[in-house]
Amino acid sequence: MPVFLNTAELDFESHFTALLTAKREDSPDVDDTVAGIIADVRARGDAAVLELTSKFDRLDLSSDQLRFTEAEIESECAKVPEDEVRALEQAAQRIRAYHVRQMPEDASWTDPEGATLGWRWTAVSAAGLYVPGGLASYPSSVLMNAVPAKVAGVERLAICVPTPDGVANPAVLLAARIAGVDEIYRIGGAQAIAALAYGTETIAPVDKITGPGNAFVAAAKRRVFGKVGIDMIAGPSEILVIADGDNDPDWIALDLMSQAEHDESAQSLLITTDADFGKAVMQAVDARLQTLERRAIAAASWRDFGAVIIVKDLEEAAALSNRIAPEHLELCVAEPDKLAEKCIHAGAIFLGAWTPEAIGDYVGGPNHVLPTARSARFSSGLSVMDFVKRTTMARMTPEALQAVGPAAETLARSESLEAHGLSVSARLEKLNR
Amino acid sequence: MPVFLNTAELDFESHFTALLTAKREDSPDVDDTVAGIIADVRARGDAAVLELTSKFDRLDLSSDQLRFTEAEIESECAKVPEDEVRALEQAAQRIRAYHVRQMPEDASWTDPEGATLGWRWTAVSAAGLYVPGGLASYPSSVLMNAVPAKVAGVERLAICVPTPDGVANPAVLLAARIAGVDEIYRIGGAQAIAALAYGTETIAPVDKITGPGNAFVAAAKRRVFGKVGIDMIAGPSEILVIADGDNDPDWIALDLMSQAEHDESAQSLLITTDADFGKAVMQAVDARLQTLERRAIAAASWRDFGAVIIVKDLEEAAALSNRIAPEHLELCVAEPDKLAEKCIHAGAIFLGAWTPEAIGDYVGGPNHVLPTARSARFSSGLSVMDFVKRTTMARMTPEALQAVGPAAETLARSESLEAHGLSVSARLEKLNR
Repeated sequence: MPVFLNTAELDFESHFTALLTAKREDSPDVDDTVAGIIADVRARGDAAVLELTSKFDRLDLSSDQLRFTEAEIESECAKVPEDEVRALEQAAQRIRAYHVRQMPEDASWTDPEGATLGWRWTAVSAAGLYVPGGLASYPSSVLMNAVPAKVAGVERLAICVPTPDGVANPAVLLAARIAGVDEIYRIGGAQAIAALAYGTETIAPVDKITGPGNAFVAAAKRRVFGKVGIDMIAGPSEILVIADGDNDPDWIALDLMSQAEHDESAQSLLITTDADFGKAVMQAVDARLQTLERRAIAAASWRDFGAVIIVKDLEEAAALSNRIAPEHLELCVAEPDKLAEKCIHAGAIFLGAWTPEAIGDYVGGPNHVLPTARSARFSSGLSVMDFVKRTTMARMTPEALQAVGPAAETLARSESLEAHGLSVSARLEKLNR
Repeated sequence: MPVFLNTAELDFESHFTALLTAKREDSPDVDDTVAGIIADVRARGDAAVLELTSKFDRLDLSSDQLRFTEAEIESECAKVPEDEVRALEQAAQRIRAYHVRQMPEDASWTDPEGATLGWRWTAVSAAGLYVPGGLASYPSSVLMNAVPAKVAGVERLAICVPTPDGVANPAVLLAARIAGVDEIYRIGGAQAIAALAYGTETIAPVDKITGPGNAFVAAAKRRVFGKVGIDMIAGPSEILVIADGDNDPDWIALDLMSQAEHDESAQSLLITTDADFGKAVMQAVDARLQTLERRAIAAASWRDFGAVIIVKDLEEAAALSNRIAPEHLELCVAEPDKLAEKCIHAGAIFLGAWTPEAIGDYVGGPNHVLPTARSARFSSGLSVMDFVKRTTMARMTPEALQAVGPAAETLARSESLEAHGLSVSARLEKLNR
């Protein structure tokens, strides 16, 4: 049973803290295995990748088969049903339209001292996107990673997606093509991450790697971080719905289940001002759990990590929400904008009952790669910003150097960095000569 | 002797690759020790911090002495010479003026389907800044970390700075006060990072930790990452100067030495179109190495990792610079803006011979915390962006849901996520009823 809490009860705080700190994920320690795989790929390149692909994916390839050919991509894409093609195209168009607005602007100005200052944004040259195989092989995730990279201007975008027993997911290949991906490799696991980071004879190295993956992939991303950039290591999905009593319990139940069905470690929370409504949602969840295809997963998640919390008002709801810092926050209340202003830590906010979270997973426009495990307190979802970097620019004139140089000399002296000071004073001396 | 290379020579490529891949830092493996310290602070809070401070800093404190009082800060600040006070104030003012311009803007728009989309930036609530003790205790670094945090709107900014044998650096405390830091604790090492991340009886936990530190601090930051956000783990400093023959060799020599004097692992590189000028710079470096206070460090860095590279033209210089992706890039050429356009991977660019890199360390305005070890290919220097996070916002209307909902249903079905699809179709059914 999910917990049913009321902030008015004396033991609320201890139950709520338990909910916040519940360890939901039990990652197997695969770090040594992964370190070995990375070292092997670094040392032997293609040969290691081919061996590991044979071993883990039961697929024997030669180097020139690592990459999907255009003809192979074409023939896989042709298998995607027409309505899925249209849905992917609509999703890509909406994601692109949203992310185009995220492109940061360069700046340059001259200050009163005559120094010209500013910054310039440039794209990461080459990026790699990991796409899991099997059940969690989501074409929507391909769009959510690849579209921002291409909007940012990444010239070379490579995907690695394992094809166990040689079976590809046609919709993943189509999503990649729609998003403008340049290269697709049929490899997975830590060996794919190592190949992207260090390169092999066939696969050129990239500068940044993003995308979800299993424990091996996550451990490999952690290990290659520094050599390349990585995105976040995402934890299990979460949703917090804040709802008043004026909602359809079944809608809210389905919103909660749409996270719960992802993963037994997912967490679905409801905060409501109406205890009867909270109970009605629990009943609606139970009813839906009778028939949902993924009911075993959803029921386990709801049982172990779900909760309904009764609060006295929306003020209290916002305060709890800020402690949870949810990945997804759905505000099904009369004035969602007003409530959103008070909810300052959240990956994504869905305003009003007509905005189910699932819209954000596919076609809303915003990214569905979002900070989990309370990291919305300090981090943001995936965006164009993950595929660009900023170079700061400064240009002094002799006059500007005369205005600010002496302070630099003073501070260099106080920090015992003599050459720093001399590099300024040698120039000032020439001016004062 | 630093290497002297010429791109025209046959073995250039192998020498250049060796330069690029030289392992400059030999970090001791302190991870087990650090894991123990963090576990101890989590378990015993203040008591552990106090014991470790006694052990490592030879300083016996009680819990209520962990934090500097206002009176203590006041009395330390009074020790700072007047010219340093003015220099720190000028530096802070310039850093603030630059970083204020980095504040990202919220966005909100309604698209043709009637969906209102956008995003909102909010500040990290609480941040912690680590400041090393001893030789590398730089007040300028306090400004470079604390000013952007305060510009971003961080409400609670705490500093940890060790005071070995009870000796504080007055300029560090003054820089903290000028930057508006809220709390200063006299603790250091992995125990300080653990206290900031997990909190103790005296120190409330923060959401993000930034700032440089030794191997223990770096390992502790890596370990608490996820629980809190961290900035980059910086490697040894680097500079690349691209200069034509029309420069004063002594200026360029001093610019090279201003990085070399930081650390024996620092790297100073010169690329020039003029071989005679390159030799003149090497002679000027040798002359300066006779007298520099930190000549032992600077000479070791120059000897082990320095290089002068002769190129046939600036086009070639830019191409090499992009492979190096330097932390600091100084362009001492006739048309630095033109050359800068071609240098797409760099942490900071200093345009023209009147802009020595040291200006950027103190009073230029841009941040001096910059990506090292070729990570400018995929990351940026510290900025206001490190202390804010973005929440994406979406609000559907019934009409918007009718326009985009069917695509979400299709994609949910193709990904076998039934509840996702049902959360949309339950709403659409009501509209179509």
